[in-house]
Amino acid sequence: MFSQRLDEIAALVAARLHDVLTDYGDQPVVQAMRYAVAGGKRLRAFLVVESARLHGIGPEQSLNSAAAIEALHAYSLVHDDLPCMDDDDLRRGLPTVHVKWDQATAVLAGDALQTLAFDLLADPATHPDANIRVALIAGLANAAGARGMVLGQALDIAAETAGRALTLNEITAMQAGKTGALITWAAGAGAILGRADPAPLRTYAAALGLAFQIADDILDVEGDAGKAGKRLQKDAQAGKATFVSLLGLEGARVRAQDLAEQAVAALSPYGPDADALRDAARFVISRDS
Amino acid sequence: MFSQRLDEIAALVAARLHDVLTDYGDQPVVQAMRYAVAGGKRLRAFLVVESARLHGIGPEQSLNSAAAIEALHAYSLVHDDLPCMDDDDLRRGLPTVHVKWDQATAVLAGDALQTLAFDLLADPATHPDANIRVALIAGLANAAGARGMVLGQALDIAAETAGRALTLNEITAMQAGKTGALITWAAGAGAILGRADPAPLRTYAAALGLAFQIADDILDVEGDAGKAGKRLQKDAQAGKATFVSLLGLEGARVRAQDLAEQAVAALSPYGPDADALRDAARFVISRDS
Repeated sequence: MFSQRLDEIAALVAARLHDVLTDYGDQPVVQAMRYAVAGGKRLRAFLVVESARLHGIGPEQSLNSAAAIEALHAYSLVHDDLPCMDDDDLRRGLPTVHVKWDQATAVLAGDALQTLAFDLLADPATHPDANIRVALIAGLANAAGARGMVLGQALDIAAETAGRALTLNEITAMQAGKTGALITWAAGAGAILGRADPAPLRTYAAALGLAFQIADDILDVEGDAGKAGKRLQKDAQAGKATFVSLLGLEGARVRAQDLAEQAVAALSPYGPDADALRDAARFVISRDS
Repeated sequence: MFSQRLDEIAALVAARLHDVLTDYGDQPVVQAMRYAVAGGKRLRAFLVVESARLHGIGPEQSLNSAAAIEALHAYSLVHDDLPCMDDDDLRRGLPTVHVKWDQATAVLAGDALQTLAFDLLADPATHPDANIRVALIAGLANAAGARGMVLGQALDIAAETAGRALTLNEITAMQAGKTGALITWAAGAGAILGRADPAPLRTYAAALGLAFQIADDILDVEGDAGKAGKRLQKDAQAGKATFVSLLGLEGARVRAQDLAEQAVAALSPYGPDADALRDAARFVISRDS
C-alpha cells in the first residue's frame, strides 16, 4: 500500500515539476534544475500529500506544496554534493550536477531550485487563501534556513573541520536540522492546508526523520552501493560519528525501531486514514536503499 | 539630499538585519551571514523605502521589504564571489566570505541569506495583508530565479565558457537579469505595499539598473580600486564584452546619460515627492565607486 502510493505521488510530483520548468527555457542551468528534481524516493512529497489527505485535501490541492518541498530538497542535495561540501560524484546512481555540468552551474541550479520552492508556494494553486500560503512559506523558510537545515549542515561541517566526532546529543541535534526540519515541514503542511493543528503530524515526522537518518547510517555500513546509487561507508572512512559508531549496529537498530513506534503512536488521533503514514514509518527502517 | 537619505536608509536596514540575525545564534555560518549583509550602498533598500514613501508608506512600514532585498542581494554576491563563479577575493574593501571563512561556509551562508529574504517578506511586519506579502514573495521569486537573476548569471558564465564575447543585445539581456531584475523588484515593491500600480516605477528601475551597470563598466576601466573596494579591469583582462568594449568609453557615457534621463522621465506621474529617486538616477551615472 505504502510503496504503491509513494509511486503514485512521485509520478504526480515529477509531472508537476516538469510542467513548471517547461516555462523556464533550455539554458544549461535549467537543464541542471530538471535533472536535479528527477527521481528520488519523494518521501517529503508523500508526507505532504498524505497529511493533506487526512484533512480532506486531495492530491490535486496539495501537489504544489509537495513539488515545493521536493524542489527545496533537491537544491540542498545539489549544494551538499559540491566539492567544497560533501564532495559526492554520484547521486541516485547518476553523476551529480557539478560532475555532469560544472560547479558554477551546480551553485546556480541549487540557488534557483530554492527560489522555485518559494515561487511554487506563493502560487494561488497552492491554496486560494494567501494567509495559508504565507504560513507555508514562513514555515519552510524557518525549516530551511540558518535555524533549520542550513544550521544542521553547518554543524556537520564544523564537526569535520574541528576533527572531533560528535556526541549522540550533538548528532541528534545536527540531524534534526539537516534532515528533520524539512520532513517535519512536509508532514505539517497537510494540516496547514486543511486549517488544522499540525502538532501531532510534526511529532510523527520528527521521530520519522530521525529513524530515517539512523536507517541511513545502518545502510551506509551494511548496504549495497548499487541499490543505494551512491558511495557507501563515506562517513566511517572520514572518521565521522554516526548513530552506528555511537550506538553500535544493534543499538542503532533498536533506536530506529523505537522511533518508528513513536512515530506510529503520534498518529493515534487519525484512525485508519493514516495507515499509509504508519506504513511509511515501518518502511523507513526496513528499506534496503 | 540623495546621499543623506541613502545613508539614513542604510542605517535603518543595517539595524533591522542586525536585529533579525541576533536571534540566529553565533555559528560561523551566521557570523558569515552578518558579515555579508554589512555595508554596501543599499541602493535596493533605498528604492524600496523611497518608492513606498511615494505611496504614503513610511520607512518603518517598508523596512522589512528593504531588508529582504538586501539579504537576497547579499546572497547573490557571496555566491558570485566563489572560486567556481567570479572568483573574487575582495568585496567592499574586505575579504570575501569564502576567503575569510571557507567555501562551504560561503555556500551555506548564501543559501541561508536567500531563505532569510523570503522569511522576512512572509513576516506580518512586512504588511498586515497576507495578499500583499504573497505578491512581494512571488515577485521576488520571479526576479531572483532562473527567469531573472540566476538566468543572467548563467548567461554570463555561458559566454565565458564559450569563449565568445556577447553582443550589445545579449549583454543588455544578461544584465537585465543579473542586476536589473532585483532593482526593478525593489522599485516596484513600494507601489505594491501601497496597493498602487508598480508599472511607472518598474520602467524607472529598468532604465536605472542598466545605467548603473554601464557606469560600473566605465568605473571598471577608469575607477580607483581603493575607492571601489574590489579588483578592477577584471572583465577587460578576461576578454569579456562590456558596455565599454562594445560602445567605447564615450558611447557608454552617452548611453548611461540617456538611460538616466529615461529613468527620470518615467517618474513624471509623481511630482516633487520623487526627487530623491530622480537624484538616484543622476547619482548612479556620476558616482566614483
